[in-house]
Amino acid sequence: MKTILYGIGVGPGDPDLLTIKGKKIINQVDCLILPVKKIGDKSFAHEIIGEHLENPGVECIEMLFPMHYNQEEFKVQWAKNAKQIEAYMGQGKTCGFITLGDPTLYSTFIYLLSYLELSEDQLEIVPGITSYSALASTLKTPLTKWQEDLRIVPLQRHDQAHIMAMLENGDNFILMKPQACTQALIGALQALNLEKSFRVISYIGRENQEIIDDIEVLKTRKLPYLSTMLIKKGGFDD
Amino acid sequence: MKTILYGIGVGPGDPDLLTIKGKKIINQVDCLILPVKKIGDKSFAHEIIGEHLENPGVECIEMLFPMHYNQEEFKVQWAKNAKQIEAYMGQGKTCGFITLGDPTLYSTFIYLLSYLELSEDQLEIVPGITSYSALASTLKTPLTKWQEDLRIVPLQRHDQAHIMAMLENGDNFILMKPQACTQALIGALQALNLEKSFRVISYIGRENQEIIDDIEVLKTRKLPYLSTMLIKKGGFDD
Repeated sequence: MKTILYGIGVGPGDPDLLTIKGKKIINQVDCLILPVKKIGDKSFAHEIIGEHLENPGVECIEMLFPMHYNQEEFKVQWAKNAKQIEAYMGQGKTCGFITLGDPTLYSTFIYLLSYLELSEDQLEIVPGITSYSALASTLKTPLTKWQEDLRIVPLQRHDQAHIMAMLENGDNFILMKPQACTQALIGALQALNLEKSFRVISYIGRENQEIIDDIEVLKTRKLPYLSTMLIKKGGFDD
Repeated sequence: MKTILYGIGVGPGDPDLLTIKGKKIINQVDCLILPVKKIGDKSFAHEIIGEHLENPGVECIEMLFPMHYNQEEFKVQWAKNAKQIEAYMGQGKTCGFITLGDPTLYSTFIYLLSYLELSEDQLEIVPGITSYSALASTLKTPLTKWQEDLRIVPLQRHDQAHIMAMLENGDNFILMKPQACTQALIGALQALNLEKSFRVISYIGRENQEIIDDIEVLKTRKLPYLSTMLIKKGGFDD
């Protein structure tokens, strides 16, 4: 017997950006799986939903999803996690898996799916508010409007030339993980006269939220893991 | 005396994809502004929040935002709407403005803002689930993963060459308003061997929701206004 696995996006940080559907489901499942990067670490997604988890009958299970493993160890751990979820489902337990932001954008949940053998009706995904929607709402600026486009790009250790070429095609850009190549990004922004056309937000919706819009400040900072950059080639004055 | 204007994203259609924050605010404001395309039409955003609007003290106000006006009439109407909102705020009333999807992506609310004179602390934006996050959740497919990017592009009456050039740069594409140039899109998909790499969803989360993944079917259809297309150049098999 197998039941349903729900992938639930809990949004970027503010607990009240959970959807009504997300709240219903976290309180209906038998097991709620909380991804952690290290055993002993608190799950950030768990912190977000904490106040909305009202059913004491839900079994909360921390599950290890390491970020910096080598590829082989990583695969072994994920396959092990998938087996554990299948075991719960085999006992007839419905499972919820909470994930930061939206499950369909660069989430742990999507990567886990390829390790699971589920039929179409054993899986349901509940969308969540993305970090970049929250960023634009916080800045009170449109991400995009009229005929402009928006590109969402995950950064790695790119060099300045790569970033400059990428910025050629598009009007507005969300750069995920800007901390991966902050200095190259700064170089690209300066070379393209976009020094005033960016904002970086870290720890959005949290007590320690910080917004940087000054390139001189950006030069001096080591950006934390939970950072997102918005670049608007048309500028922020609207 | 002026109070706060809230722009509230109500998500793409399923009432339970409203956020907890959105639900709180629609029940706290003095006036809730419901955009309609024509006087006498029902506001779609209003239908979505209907069951979550529990406070009978909230004054609901339909406001006309025509879609097909000429530019001059359009500007006159929007300026008039802005004046009306400012009048409510001048009476010390907090106002909520509900908008489909997310307020920061191509929303009526963002366009209205340029007609309003508000200080920083008179405006709050509550993000909403986008149609394309809901699309990917419904299809149970990632929008984007690993190092892939995502481009969100609003279509107009583009020709096939324009669409083909646009599809060169990027891995995954969300095309808004595919009904604006469906035949050119079909031509581009065929020319680039992407006939099996698209999905179109209409009326997402509603009773009449429809998903099209067959290009022969697409050729025979007139897509409705509320349609979104996802193209994944790497295909849907994951």
